[in-house]
Amino acid sequence: MEPSRPLDALNKARNKKVIVELKNSKQFRGTLIAFDIHINTVLDDAEEYVDGELKRKIGTIFLRGDTITLIAPQ
Amino acid sequence: MEPSRPLDALNKARNKKVIVELKNSKQFRGTLIAFDIHINTVLDDAEEYVDGELKRKIGTIFLRGDTITLIAPQ
Amino acid sequence: MEPSRPLDALNKARNKKVIVELKNSKQFRGTLIAFDIHINTVLDDAEEYVDGELKRKIGTIFLRGDTITLIAPQ
Amino acid sequence: MEPSRPLDALNKARNKKVIVELKNSKQFRGTLIAFDIHINTVLDDAEEYVDGELKRKIGTIFLRGDTITLIAPQ
Amino acid sequence: MEPSRPLDALNKARNKKVIVELKNSKQFRGTLIAFDIHINTVLDDAEEYVDGELKRKIGTIFLRGDTITLIAPQ
Amino acid sequence: MEPSRPLDALNKARNKKVIVELKNSKQFRGTLIAFDIHINTVLDDAEEYVDGELKRKIGTIFLRGDTITLIAPQ
Amino acid sequence: MEPSRPLDALNKARNKKVIVELKNSKQFRGTLIAFDIHINTVLDDAEEYVDGELKRKIGTIFLRGDTITLIAPQ
Repeated sequence: MEPSRPLDALNKARNKKVIVELKNSKQFRGTLIAFDIHINTVLDDAEEYVDGELKRKIGTIFLRGDTITLIAPQ
Repeated sequence: MEPSRPLDALNKARNKKVIVELKNSKQFRGTLIAFDIHINTVLDDAEEYVDGELKRKIGTIFLRGDTITLIAPQ
Repeated sequence: MEPSRPLDALNKARNKKVIVELKNSKQFRGTLIAFDIHINTVLDDAEEYVDGELKRKIGTIFLRGDTITLIAPQ
Repeated sequence: MEPSRPLDALNKARNKKVIVELKNSKQFRGTLIAFDIHINTVLDDAEEYVDGELKRKIGTIFLRGDTITLIAPQ
Repeated sequence: MEPSRPLDALNKARNKKVIVELKNSKQFRGTLIAFDIHINTVLDDAEEYVDGELKRKIGTIFLRGDTITLIAPQ
Repeated sequence: MEPSRPLDALNKARNKKVIVELKNSKQFRGTLIAFDIHINTVLDDAEEYVDGELKRKIGTIFLRGDTITLIAPQ
Repeated sequence: MEPSRPLDALNKARNKKVIVELKNSKQFRGTLIAFDIHINTVLDDAEEYVDGELKRKIGTIFLRGDTITLIAPQ
């Protein structure tokens, strides 16, 4: 069996709810629609949270990969 | 069906209103005219917002990709 | 018709007045003489503004692309 | 005998408990599931620690490589 | 006529006095001896200025390109 | 005789004690087991020092190259 | 005559005393033993200075290129 690769974990999370955290400490929650090898990421039904509080609902959002620190399937 | 890619979401937003946020916390709203794989982005009828308040109207603006954190179609 | 690309907007601004803002918040105004794919940029008759006030007149200036956040034709 | 390479140390830690520290000082502990040459890393049963205190349990987490400073097998 | 390129402006400044500013706000003045596509730059008879005051005379200095924000021929 | 290259100095330090300092000011001391062209580095019997005081013993540690400022054989 | 290139200045400084300054404001003085195109640099008989005061003597030191702002032959 091949050892698994990091993007496999993101592939499994497609169309599922994920948390994405950015270098500027912003947190977004939404449905993972797309990502690429740079970790550019698109969420649907995205919501921005600050300190655990909902700050705004955004709909679709494109996040530039180099600003992302982590992605966690919920 | 092919899994969608992040730039597909930007392609759908062409000629539509988007919000662009930068690493320095500036926010621009305008019509998405162009972007490339580096996420260099051109907006038309751009307006700069600071803390939700309109700061200035700019017309056409070129934003260097590596300064962008997110793009959200409105 | 081909979708437009970000550098097309800069090409249209050649030999015209532009505003260039840097990551360190400096702002330069001048005539756009040259740029490349890294967004290295040369202005003529350049002036540096701080908080909207003219700080110095510089003549020709070479700006390294990775320090630039935005370029706006005036 | 070939001199060992840095990723050999990560390969040995596969499916074992590791500590991962980020540039923003966050610390994650979990089971190392996957990594690539960019050091993009996936942990299972991940827990986030702040100042040595457990902050949250996360399950699976994808960490973007360029945000990581160190990985230590436990 | 070919549109001019940013490095043309630096080529014209060879063996002439230039001001170089760095991301850490240091300013160097000296004779531009050499540069490359990364904007690695060598000055001769270099002087470091802080807030417009001469801080030290250095002679020859190699400046790593990615630390440079601007180069202005004097 | 060929001029020496920077990685030659690291090669000579293999299996010897080194000090590694990071951009976040952390200092690690340990035995240099492996490094690559990105300066990704693995230490054995690693110890973390803060302001010259031993903070923790870690065993094996993988340090991502872009976080390293210097490596000094002891 | 070919225009000179930035690394020529470093080549001339081989086996001579240089000052190296880092992005974190540390200054090292020592004999330039080796460098490469990334400006990874090795000094011998290196000394670290803080605010002009000798802080420590280090012997051989490897400095990662992307942390270096300037190199000045003494």
